[in-house]
Order: sequence, then structure tokens, then C-alpha cells
Amino acid sequence: MTDQIDTRLPTVDARIYARGGLDILSRGEVAKLRDASTGIHDLLRGCALAVLTSGSASDDPRAARELYPDFDIEVQQQDRGVRIELRNAPAMAFVDGELIRGVADLLFAVVRDLAYTTIELREGGSRDLLSSEGITDAVFGLLRNARILYPTDPNLVVCWGGHSINREEYVYTKQVGYELGLRSLDICTGCGPGAMKGPMKGATIAHAKQRRRRTRYIGITEPGIIAAESPNPIVNNLVIMPDIEKRLEAFVRLGHGIIVFPGGVGTAEEILYLLGILLREENADLPFPLILTGPTSAAPYFEQIDRFLRLTLGEIATSRYEIIVADPAKVATRMAEGIARVREHRKAHRDSFFFNWSIDIPLAFQQPFVPSHEAMAALDLHHGRKPHELAADLRRAFSGIVAGNVKEDGMRRIEEFGPFEIHGDDDMMQSLDALLRAFVEQRRMKIAGEYKPCYRVVT
Amino acid sequence: MTDQIDTRLPTVDARIYARGGLDILSRGEVAKLRDASTGIHDLLRGCALAVLTSGSASDDPRAARELYPDFDIEVQQQDRGVRIELRNAPAMAFVDGELIRGVADLLFAVVRDLAYTTIELREGGSRDLLSSEGITDAVFGLLRNARILYPTDPNLVVCWGGHSINREEYVYTKQVGYELGLRSLDICTGCGPGAMKGPMKGATIAHAKQRRRRTRYIGITEPGIIAAESPNPIVNNLVIMPDIEKRLEAFVRLGHGIIVFPGGVGTAEEILYLLGILLREENADLPFPLILTGPTSAAPYFEQIDRFLRLTLGEIATSRYEIIVADPAKVATRMAEGIARVREHRKAHRDSFFFNWSIDIPLAFQQPFVPSHEAMAALDLHHGRKPHELAADLRRAFSGIVAGNVKEDGMRRIEEFGPFEIHGDDDMMQSLDALLRAFVEQRRMKIAGEYKPCYRVVT
Amino acid sequence: MTDQIDTRLPTVDARIYARGGLDILSRGEVAKLRDASTGIHDLLRGCALAVLTSGSASDDPRAARELYPDFDIEVQQQDRGVRIELRNAPAMAFVDGELIRGVADLLFAVVRDLAYTTIELREGGSRDLLSSEGITDAVFGLLRNARILYPTDPNLVVCWGGHSINREEYVYTKQVGYELGLRSLDICTGCGPGAMKGPMKGATIAHAKQRRRRTRYIGITEPGIIAAESPNPIVNNLVIMPDIEKRLEAFVRLGHGIIVFPGGVGTAEEILYLLGILLREENADLPFPLILTGPTSAAPYFEQIDRFLRLTLGEIATSRYEIIVADPAKVATRMAEGIARVREHRKAHRDSFFFNWSIDIPLAFQQPFVPSHEAMAALDLHHGRKPHELAADLRRAFSGIVAGNVKEDGMRRIEEFGPFEIHGDDDMMQSLDALLRAFVEQRRMKIAGEYKPCYRVVT
Amino acid sequence: MTDQIDTRLPTVDARIYARGGLDILSRGEVAKLRDASTGIHDLLRGCALAVLTSGSASDDPRAARELYPDFDIEVQQQDRGVRIELRNAPAMAFVDGELIRGVADLLFAVVRDLAYTTIELREGGSRDLLSSEGITDAVFGLLRNARILYPTDPNLVVCWGGHSINREEYVYTKQVGYELGLRSLDICTGCGPGAMKGPMKGATIAHAKQRRRRTRYIGITEPGIIAAESPNPIVNNLVIMPDIEKRLEAFVRLGHGIIVFPGGVGTAEEILYLLGILLREENADLPFPLILTGPTSAAPYFEQIDRFLRLTLGEIATSRYEIIVADPAKVATRMAEGIARVREHRKAHRDSFFFNWSIDIPLAFQQPFVPSHEAMAALDLHHGRKPHELAADLRRAFSGIVAGNVKEDGMRRIEEFGPFEIHGDDDMMQSLDALLRAFVEQRRMKIAGEYKPCYRVVT
Repeated sequence: MTDQIDTRLPTVDARIYARGGLDILSRGEVAKLRDASTGIHDLLRGCALAVLTSGSASDDPRAARELYPDFDIEVQQQDRGVRIELRNAPAMAFVDGELIRGVADLLFAVVRDLAYTTIELREGGSRDLLSSEGITDAVFGLLRNARILYPTDPNLVVCWGGHSINREEYVYTKQVGYELGLRSLDICTGCGPGAMKGPMKGATIAHAKQRRRRTRYIGITEPGIIAAESPNPIVNNLVIMPDIEKRLEAFVRLGHGIIVFPGGVGTAEEILYLLGILLREENADLPFPLILTGPTSAAPYFEQIDRFLRLTLGEIATSRYEIIVADPAKVATRMAEGIARVREHRKAHRDSFFFNWSIDIPLAFQQPFVPSHEAMAALDLHHGRKPHELAADLRRAFSGIVAGNVKEDGMRRIEEFGPFEIHGDDDMMQSLDALLRAFVEQRRMKIAGEYKPCYRVVT
Repeated sequence: MTDQIDTRLPTVDARIYARGGLDILSRGEVAKLRDASTGIHDLLRGCALAVLTSGSASDDPRAARELYPDFDIEVQQQDRGVRIELRNAPAMAFVDGELIRGVADLLFAVVRDLAYTTIELREGGSRDLLSSEGITDAVFGLLRNARILYPTDPNLVVCWGGHSINREEYVYTKQVGYELGLRSLDICTGCGPGAMKGPMKGATIAHAKQRRRRTRYIGITEPGIIAAESPNPIVNNLVIMPDIEKRLEAFVRLGHGIIVFPGGVGTAEEILYLLGILLREENADLPFPLILTGPTSAAPYFEQIDRFLRLTLGEIATSRYEIIVADPAKVATRMAEGIARVREHRKAHRDSFFFNWSIDIPLAFQQPFVPSHEAMAALDLHHGRKPHELAADLRRAFSGIVAGNVKEDGMRRIEEFGPFEIHGDDDMMQSLDALLRAFVEQRRMKIAGEYKPCYRVVT
Repeated sequence: MTDQIDTRLPTVDARIYARGGLDILSRGEVAKLRDASTGIHDLLRGCALAVLTSGSASDDPRAARELYPDFDIEVQQQDRGVRIELRNAPAMAFVDGELIRGVADLLFAVVRDLAYTTIELREGGSRDLLSSEGITDAVFGLLRNARILYPTDPNLVVCWGGHSINREEYVYTKQVGYELGLRSLDICTGCGPGAMKGPMKGATIAHAKQRRRRTRYIGITEPGIIAAESPNPIVNNLVIMPDIEKRLEAFVRLGHGIIVFPGGVGTAEEILYLLGILLREENADLPFPLILTGPTSAAPYFEQIDRFLRLTLGEIATSRYEIIVADPAKVATRMAEGIARVREHRKAHRDSFFFNWSIDIPLAFQQPFVPSHEAMAALDLHHGRKPHELAADLRRAFSGIVAGNVKEDGMRRIEEFGPFEIHGDDDMMQSLDALLRAFVEQRRMKIAGEYKPCYRVVT
Repeated sequence: MTDQIDTRLPTVDARIYARGGLDILSRGEVAKLRDASTGIHDLLRGCALAVLTSGSASDDPRAARELYPDFDIEVQQQDRGVRIELRNAPAMAFVDGELIRGVADLLFAVVRDLAYTTIELREGGSRDLLSSEGITDAVFGLLRNARILYPTDPNLVVCWGGHSINREEYVYTKQVGYELGLRSLDICTGCGPGAMKGPMKGATIAHAKQRRRRTRYIGITEPGIIAAESPNPIVNNLVIMPDIEKRLEAFVRLGHGIIVFPGGVGTAEEILYLLGILLREENADLPFPLILTGPTSAAPYFEQIDRFLRLTLGEIATSRYEIIVADPAKVATRMAEGIARVREHRKAHRDSFFFNWSIDIPLAFQQPFVPSHEAMAALDLHHGRKPHELAADLRRAFSGIVAGNVKEDGMRRIEEFGPFEIHGDDDMMQSLDALLRAFVEQRRMKIAGEYKPCYRVVT
């Protein structure tokens, strides 16, 4: 007979009530959320656990489930609306036995968005989720239901960047957030730690100094990443989009400008996604401030990206972004100026302040890219293509290479079928390779063992 | 050459902006509201005109359209959301050139509800509008979208009664509203003047004295009657249900108790509708305060109704209502007690405070009754039936007779096919006849010329 | 042994807590309010009883004290601030055992103002209550402490008029209040029924329609009249000034315009007080809208007053007021225009919107007039005097004559020393006499038996 | 001819308006604030400059005046109340030309408190500023006027400690503030950087997570120290007390518990002040949580203080405080428990939650101690005295020694008259000496050159 050490962490049972009657569900909706047979209950359980373990040290999404194997959540109808019952919930979300109010709010946001997605955006339902317009309407519908759309003056800055940046870079994101906050700008990020959290913390202090009360710290996530990048409770508007592409569209249609901090390959993909849209002719006249920034030590990172973009997309690409190094106040001032131009443009074109209807996002950007060997072989990375088309294919190449290196699915495929074959010009591919190697060196892409390209170039 | 007198009334052009960003429409929704080809624009124009002519003396719905032939409304998308453009709008809704704010709010409510009905509740859409459960879900969805569902303590009193009652009765409804307001009860009516307006006015004064700020004066109407009973701007929550049956269901599921003031045949129909539901076995244990009340002069009116109900439905019916004459404070006290019981019941059964899921409303009550000669002949008005079934058939009989006497459609049918044949017990039919004659005498049912029954009894 | 009928009315014991922490008293202040030896407790008891019997039918201030002989009030310090303990309080102020919240607020206003007056404005204290400037500062201090001074746009209309006007006149004051309210104007009156209450009721309905939430229904009273004219709980800002003269000054410095409805001799006195100020050279350039208005049946009343003012003060007086008969909308429109001019003037002269520092009120108007035989004999009612000086003496004459006819003190003096001797021109005195007789005929001045002048003219 | 470098910093001219009409001044009050002859304008200018240079690196109060020699402030009356006109104001308080709103609020607090002190608490005025009760009333009056007194549940934690602590200690104060904030506790400090700012920053983040909106970050300062410890704009309730003793009394009467972080001699003085009060028999039953805390590296500091207190005041003193090292969550939990006891005690004794009337502060603690040679010689530092009396004299000894070492006035006296003579027991004096030397070594007391005692012991 052996002794087993109980590695399970302390837990709490609790009942949580919604505040202010914001979230009213029908009896049918509540029933659906409780239905174990549909998988929605598992989804709910996973998202809820992510919210409840926010701030935990671990980066591993599976960790939470293993540490809290008996955790469960149940949504109940009661007299004043919806009640959430937690069993064996992580004690770390509680203070002296009381759930942190912000965490409770996030839980209700999870319930609200999963209910909406399940019922309104279900496949085979009445909504058209196949056309570009239909997908945009779905994004709009979910954001409206989450009460994110609010007709205030344009002031929402989306911040992208890595969630495991170093301390210096993290402090820098706080400083930028502080300067944005002093200028009464609100923050939207993808949830999680690092560059997703720093700007919100900085802005919180600045908003307190500016006596802003109706502040918005919007976090946009999706079920696949919420476990790894759980929302910090400073987030006071959490939205769970159904998938990565709708999440990206939400960023672009909600935000009035985007700041990119140092990050990993995911960040590079996001830059290519955005340039692929902004470089379209349809969007040529649309103002959209995009600033790449970091502390002095991050200068080489941005230089590399800049070089890569110039080489691949041409000088035209540089007209769409600005790189600012180690100057938080300038970042904020330039962003405020850019947003002022956005405001003028929206007024002139009668576009709404709260949802960027005008920006053209083609269907290809709204649909997931699955990096099969066929799909990778179909990419066309040659000079001479239109910049936005090239940007789109570069993003896909990136996505596939990352998958081949670090994602379970992709790694398995490489093992089975050998490296991807990618058709592209030599210089472009070398530049891509250099970029990836630099990420590995700077520890921005974490791989086990030595870096070995998972593709070969076919010219 | 003849002189023509211009009977058109003074008009104003105006642009109205939504407040507080409550009403966010998508580009597609705005487009649909502007689409002249679908009939929705006509509906919008008609409802808007009703809102803008609230308080006008005329009782005739067609009057407004004739008096303001050039009136038009356009919904536009702009930077902060939705803007309404009015052309040749009735000057009576404006004060020194400014639209009364409450009227503007009602206009936005019209836009919101028509957009929802058109898009979410469209026929052939994804919602199930044929089953009883599906209809209830549709009612819930529309009310939730109108932000009427609010998880406060039960305090909503529905007031029914005539819209063309005499001065003494009108003053009485104000007094009852005042006493309800002193007890922090909110008011819900069907919009329009008379018994629909008096309780709200009285409650407004009482709420001011009680320093209540979040007061609710809910008006529930539908496109077919809004022109005749246009909402008073004291109404701060207007809902436009798609049809009469959903409107009745909204009253019953929203209200925590109902007060019936003197009224005409419509009011009698509503009483029968409600008793038809409350007398069902499924609802036997459900508390639902129902008070019939009026000033001393209205005592005979209620005695007559009481007699009719006892005779037809039996003594059991009287367990479901209380008649109080000339005692506003008692009405309010009894209603408050009844609502306290409703509260306990909801808590015990975990039913929500804001939507009465528990009450059983069968499909027959949710579907319209079209009083054809066949349908009338199929009624079964004999002693011995279950009270709730008899109540349902009595309500249909009533509805048909009223149509045969005063509604264009019904009168035409009678002319063409002769009087309805109704199968029923003699005493019951005589009692019905007596009731109708009394309504005519008391001028509660307005008919041209002498009253002549439009039916004959088959025994 | 005889049976005695107990005429005492039902009473309630209750504890009332302040809301929102607005009223914070020190231990010393609470002690002073409880000190039976200083007379302040009696004052508090009297004012509180007036507030609690608001709306009662009786016009007799002594009545309340006799009907509630055991009523007592105690102010207590407790954890969250001040608590009021009521013993044997009139049941009429309670609804189902709960004190109407507006009445509770008025009680706390009484406590607040009596504490301030007793401690800050006590005789022999540090404040200068003898100079004109010092008195104005005291008025300002009390109003500031009562949180009446609020830097909003000018919109405060003072309404004067009788508290026992007839039904037609009362309905008219409601209509005027309604039209004022539709134009977002707030109301200030002297508390009590009749013309003091009607405008507030009308404005309450209009403010509800205009969705105004921060409405002000200011009542300004003083301990000597509060019992006879107890504040209606619609009043949401009650101020108890220390005496009649400071109350009048508060009206003039707070209000941005004044409407005078039909009233009795008190109202006539107020008109003369105001004209005595407005006709001063120092105030010549100061805009101050003054409108006399009533229903058609009140036209003769205003004609008489108009004639009297023209005869005594000359045509110049008419430049300061406008008479509008039976046109509530016009009254409101003209008042709104006048207030717009007040706004411009204040901005141009950097005078505050919330306190009319610029208007010159001489010391003589700030001090009480005691109508002794000497004082009355010293009046100088002859043509040729400056209008504002004559207005001041006319007001005093009026005041004395009223006292001699209806006030206990004055009647006793007349009995003892014979009629007052007044020096004045014949025509002026005859006009005065005609005015008084008309008041008696119209039942606007209530006297026992036949009217007999209490003065004789010395020429 | 020589070139002079212009060391003056960039400045801005600006007009600031009050928000929300909170601060209403009379014409007389405004005039007084503008009167250059009384010295109040200088005081206003100095305090305003301190507020505007908050966050500047310099520790030297004179620096600000030299860096902004042309700065001026003028208070003006205008239509909506008070306006502040700034000339040559430090640009550092502005963001893109706009004054930070929190800084503007602090400026208005300065105006409000100086007006109150000058007019209401002037010497020779009506208030009794000589008796203990009168001084407490003055403290109450000023705090009430500043709207600090608010009848919420006890939750105000006063944090004391040095303003020039090291980074590790600063981060620790943030962590403690964060834990306090998670438990919905508000913060009150003495303004300035270091231990005065850290807890507020930490609490700001925690309050955001707990969705607390009505947070209080109270800063209490006085004109003599505001320049050196200028208020951080997170402070949303600034109070300027007239002198150091009233400031200390304000801390003790407002706070529901006190946390002492590492600090310098000032902090030690504050501990002795508080123990001198808490050890009085009159306060024996009064709960008052007092926690001394810091990171592990600060443990020796608190051990030293603990030893000193035990030796001088006896073991009894330790019953009044608790030392917690490196455990922010425990500090917060213990403080919350202590405050719960305070709440119970106040309820039981009907003391107000917002002002600690019950605590006995004798006149000697309310009056300034001027460390002349006579006063120092009169101290009686021997074992056997009552602890609270000894604590009082120890505090005075401390105060004198500090003055002799670092304050201009004191140093001059020592130079002129030689060292102070202090009567005391040897061991006590040695312990005192050891404590002072430790402060110098730990750089908590900054002296030029080597530390040389400015006193000698007479036994």
C-alpha cells in the first residue's frame, strides 16, 4: 500500500448571482446550457475554469483541468434571473470566501456568450454563416448581445502582443497603457497576461487620475485559447467569440486603432492579417492607426519585422504602420491623433462609431485556414503579387509553419508526410526563415530541442 | 372655381437621436426598415404617427393619416447609432420646436420592436411560432429585447379598462394609481387614454412623493390598435407586440396582478380570457390577484358582470377575483398583499420574478379567434362544461358578437349570411344578452342606431 | 361620571433614517436640537408636525397641535448619522405603516435648517446680521447648507399666489406648471396648497414626459407660516428660512423669474415688495421676468391690481410686469424667453446662475415692518415720491391694514388705540380701499362679519 | 556679459472649472481668497503649486517655487460658480494641454479648504479653538465641509510610513493596498510618494477587480508639508487641515484602523502619538486595530521599535499593536477583523461610523509642541510614569531631537544655546539613542555629515 500525495488545490463551493439584471435567460436557454449531451456543458466548464484560474502561474491549459478535476458549474434559473452554482471551484478566485466581483462578472459573460452562440449562431440555424456579410452580421449580433457596442466617441485602442514577454517589455506595456489612459482612451486586448494585461493596469491608474468612471477594458477571446490566456478580472467587458477568425474580425471592427507590442509568432500572424486587410484597394482611404512599439531592447525585434514586411510586401506596406521605440507618451499622442482622423472619417461617411462597417474583410479572411500539405503547397509567395494577396498567403504560410513546429496536430502531419512544400521566391523565404530563427533565439517561440524548419522551398 | 379649406394641421420636420445608446441596429436591420416594398415601412409610418398624435382628441385611427397625409419617417444609420428623420410630423408633439423627449423615446421603441419582429419573428424564420412553447419564447424574446424584463421584486400591476370612460371613472383610476404608487407599485396598461392613462398619472405623483426614480410605466400595444389608443408619453417602456394574442400573453406573464376598471366589451373579453386561464387545473395553485374596481357609480356595472360570471362559470369563478367599490386605498392594499403572495410562490418554485413561466396558457389562447359563422356555430355554451373551457368559448362568443355589431368585417358577414347561430343554454344566453344591452345603455359599446342582436340562440 | 369622546386622531410611532448621508450633524448640534430649555425643541416639534400633516383639510395652524397633543420628535445620533424618532405622529403621513419617503426627506430638511439657524445664525454669534450685506450672506449660507445652490442653467420659476384659491384657479395653476415643465423649467413656491402646489403637480407630469430626472420642486417657508401652509411632499427641496424677510429675499435671489397667480392680500404685498425692489435705479438694467396670470374668471382681479399700480406707482411700474389671461402656453413661453435674457445678463456680468448677487435689496426690505400706530402714521403715501419708495410704503400700509383686520396682534391694537392714521393722497387711499373691499367680496381676504376699515386717512 | 541658462521649466496658462457644482463660494469668500494683503493668497499659491507638481522628482519644497517663479493662481466668480485661472502653471500637470482631471479636483479642494479655514476657523472668530471640545468641533466642521464624512460602513484604513522608502518597501505597500482593496477597504494617507502612494495604487487595481465605484482615496495634509509631500492625483478626497495637530486628530477620528509601514523619525513620532492616546484609561475599551508591517528586509526596523516601546512603555503597550512581516494578505485579513470589531463597538455605543467621537484626545495632544530648551528640559522620561503620559513626553523628546538635527529652526537653537538637556532614565535614553542611530544608518533620517546627538541626558 502506497501513500499518494494529494496534489489537488484548495477549492470552494459557491453560489453566484448576477448583478443589475443584465443577463436574462429564458427557461429554454438555461436548459440548453445544462444539457450534458451536447458538449456545451463541457465548453462552459472549461471556460469557467479558465476565468476562475486567472492569474495562476501555469501556462498550460490542461493544467487547470488536472488541478481541479472535480470542478463543476451549473446554471440555474431563479427568482431574480440566473444563478451560477460552483462546486470545487479554485479557492484562488476567492477573497476570504467571497468570489472577486470582477471574476463573477466574467463568469456571467461566459454564460451569456455561450448561450448566444449555441442558440443564435448554431449551425443549421437560420443565420447565414457562409457569406461574408452573414459572418459580419453574426459578429455584430454577438457583440451587441454582449453590450459592447456603445455609441460613445471613438476611443478604443486594441493592444496586441505576447503573453509571455519579459519584465522590461511588460513594464513598457503598462507605461503605454498609462499614457493612453491619461488621454481617455479605452483598452481592448485578447485577454491573458503580458501585453494583454499591462496596458489595462496602466490605464486603470490613469483613468483613476482622470476620474473616468465608465471605463472599458474589453477582452476578446475564444474557447480554444481562453484556457491558456485566461482573462484578468480588470477586464470589465469579456466576449467569447465562437472561433479565431470571428475574434480577429471583432478586434478590427471594434477597435479604432491598434498597437502591437513585442510578441511571438502569433503576433506576427496578426500583423500580416491586418496588413492583408488594410492593403486592399477597398480600404485604401480608410484611416486606421497602427503602431508597433516596445522598449529600447525590443528595437531589433521591430526592425526585423519591418525589414521582412518591406521585402515581401514592398514599401507600400510601411504607409500603414509606424514604429515607435521607447516613447510611451508619443505612442499615445500619435494614437489619439489617428483616432481623431477615424472619427472624422466615420462622421463623413455616416459609419457608426462603434462598429467599423466600412472596412472590407473578404471571406477568405473570415474562414479558418487549415494547414494541410495541400493547402501549404497552394500558397504563392512570389514577388509581383498584389500586396494584400501576398500578405494573406504569408499569414497562412506562417500559420502553417507554426503549426508544424509547435501544434500537436501540425507536428503529427509533418512526421507522417514530411515537410511542407512551399512555393516562393528565395529571398522571401530566406527572410521568413530568418524571422523565425530570431523568434526562437529571442525565446519568443518555444520549441523543444533545436529549431528545425518544417518546410522546404520549391522555386 | 371653388375655394378649398386646407384642413391639414401644422407640421414640423425634425431629426431625432437616440439616447444612451440603448438601441443599436445593424446595417441590415436599418435597410430592412427602409424597404418600402415589404410593408414594414408602412407599419413603421403608422405606428410612428400614432405615437406623435398621442393625446389628440380624435378616436378615429384613420383620422391621423388623413390629417397628416405627407408625414413620413426614415430610419438612418449614423455615427452614434440610429437617427430618425421626420418629415411633416404633427406639430402637437413638439414644444417650442423640440420634440417631447418621452415621445422621442417611444419612437425609438417602435423602431426597435418592428425591427425585432420583422427580423427575428418573421414567418418562415428559424423560430417555432406554431407550438405553445415557441410562442411563449417569442413573447419572451421580444420583451427581453425591449429591456422590459428586469429582476426587481414583483411590483407590476396591470390595469385594464375602457379608454373612453367618464370623468368620474377617470378620476377614480387616477386615485387608484396614486395609491398603488404610494406603495411603490409600477403600472402596466395597454396604452391610450382613459383607464390606460389615469393610473399612470396618479402613480407619477405618488412616485414623486415616494422619491422613486426607477419607475416603470409600461405600455403594451400592437400595430392594429396603436392608432386608436396611442401611447401617452408618461409611458416610459413601450412594447409593440406583433398581434393581440401575444399582447394578452405579455400582460399575463409580465404582470404580478391585474386591476380591471370599468370598460366596454373589450374589457369584458379580457376578463373572460384571464378567467379562462386562471380556472385551468394547471393554474389552480398559482396566486394571481385580480381586482375589479370603480367608483360608486360603477357598482351596477360590476354587479352585472359578477352575476354573469356566477351564472355561467359557477361560484368557483368568484374565487379568482375580488370586487371593490369606491375604495382606492383598499384596492392598493389588497393588490400589495396579493403580490406578496406571488413573490413567495415564485421564490418557492424558483420561477423568475420578471416573467411568469409557470402559468399555463394553452395554444388555443395563443392563436387568434376568427369569428366566422362556422366558428360561432361550433361554440358550446352549456352548463356542465369545465369552467375554463366555458370561459374560453364565452370569450369567443363575445368576440364574435362584438365583431358582428361594430367591426367592419363582422358587420359585413352578418349582412351577407344573416345572424350567427350560437348553441347554448337559454339562461346563459339571456344573461349574455342582458350584459350587452347594459353596455349599450351605459354607452360602453357604441353602435349606430338601435341595438339589434347579431345572433340567434339555438338550443 | 361622563363619557368623553376621544377626538384624537390615529397616530404612529416610527424611527426614520436619513438617506444618502446628506445630513451629517455633530454631537454638539444634536445636543442643541434636543435641549428643551432653549425653545428650539418646540420649534422643531411645530415644524415637524406641519410637515407630517401636509395635505390635511384644516387651515388652522393650531388645529394640528390640538389634534396631536402627544406628538413628539427626537433627533438622535447613531452609527450612520442622524436618526429621527417620532412618537404619536399623525398616521396620515404613513402608508401601510411606512412614512412616505418624501415626508421623511422634509423632516430631515427641517432638522438641517433649524440646526443651521440655531448654531450659525444665532443672535450674538459671529455673523453680521445687521448690515444688508451680512443678511444676504446669511441667506446665502443657509441656502448653500441646504444644497439648493446648484450651478445649472437658469431655469427656476418662482410661483406666488393664494393657497385657498378656487378650483378653476387651481386647475389653471396646474396647467401653467405643466407648460413650464414641458420647457424644462423647475418650480419654486412658498409651500402649502393652492397656487403653491398646483404648478408643482403640473410640472411633475410634464417632467415625466420630458424624462427629466433631476427636477427641483423647491419650497421656501419659515417657522411662522409652515403650520398654516405645510409643504406638499412633491417638494423635494425644502428650506426653512428664519423669518419672512429672509424668505422673501431667498425667493428673489434664487428665482430667475416670478409668476403671480390670483391670491389674497399676502400676494398683493409680495407684488409691492418685488416692485419696490425692481423699480430701484440700481436694478434698472436687471432683467427679471414677472408675469401675473390666471384663468378668464380672474381677469378682473388682475385689472384691479393693474389699475392700483398704475395710479400709485405710475405707468413706469407696468414696464416691470406683464399680465396674461387664460393662456398657460404663452405664460411659459414668455417666461422661458425672459429667463434666456436673465442668462445672458448673468454671463455678461459674471454673476452666478444660482444666486442673484446683483439685485439690490436695501436694508429696509430686509428688516421686518412692525405695524405700530407710530409706524403707520409715519408712512408717506403721496404722489410725487420715487416709485420704489412709494411701493415700499404701500407695502407697509397694506401689511398694517391686514394686521389690523385679521391678525390677533393687530386687531388688539386697533381695539385699544383706535384706527391707524395714515397720511396719503385721497385718490391713492380710495384706490387702496377699493382693492381691499374687492378682496373681501371675492373672498380672498377672510374676515369675520362685515368689513370695516381699520384706518382713517389724514390728508 | 555672461549667458544665463534659463532653468525655468515649461508652463501653461489655463482656466479650470469646477465639476458637479460641489464647490459654491460666496462673493465675500472669493474676495477673501484674492486678497493679497492677508497672506491667504500666498498660502493658496503655495498649495496649488504643490498639487500641480505632484509626482516631480524633487524632495525639496523650495524647489517648486524656484522652478516656477511666475506661477500664479486666481479664484474667480462666474456664472456656474467658481473658476480657477492659472498662469505659468507647471506643464507637467497637463496632458496634451489639458489639466489632468484629478489634479483639477485637488485644486478645488485646496480652494475649498483654505476658504473654510480662513473664514470659519479664523482666530478671534466665533469658534472656540482653545478647548479640546472646540478643536474637535473645528476638525469635524472642516471634514464635513470637505464632504469626507459619509455614513458608510466602517472601512477606512489609514496608512502611515515614510515617503522615501526603498523600492522593495514600496512594492510591499502596493501589495498591502491591493489586499486591502480586495476586501473593499478604502485608503487614507498623508499624501505624497512612497508609503503614502503605494497603498492607493494597489487598492486602485483591486477596487477595479472588485468593481467598486465609490472608492475613497483620502489624503490629509496641511500647508506646512504639502509642498514636500504633494498629493498624488489618485487621491480623490483631499483635505488641507490648518496645522499638524488637527491633521493627526483627523487621521485618528476618521480612520477605523491604522497600518504603519517603515518610515523615518516622523513615522516613529506618529506611533508614539497614537500610543499616547490609545494607552489612556479613557480609551481602554475602544477597539482600534494598529498593525506595523513591512517586507522581510524591514523586520529589524520593527523589532527595534518594538524593543524601544516595550522598554519605555512596558509590555502593556504591545497589547495595542501587532507586527506582521511580509504577509500582505494577513495584514488585510487582520485589519478587516479589527474593523469589524470597531463596527460592533460603534453600533453598541451609538457612535457614528464616520467620526470617532468616543476616542479621548486630551488638549495636550491637540496643541503644538514647540521644542524650546525649556520645554525639552521639562520632559520627564522616567520609568514609573503612566504609559500614556510617558508616550506623550517621548513623542515630544523625539520631536525636539529631530528638530535639533534636521530642522532649520532647531539647528539654529542648538548652535546658539548648546544641546538640549533631557531628564530621563539612562536605559530609556540609550534606547532612544540607539533607535536614532539606526534610523541614520538605514538612511531613514537624512543628516548632513556624521550623526551627532543634539542633546545630553541629565539623570
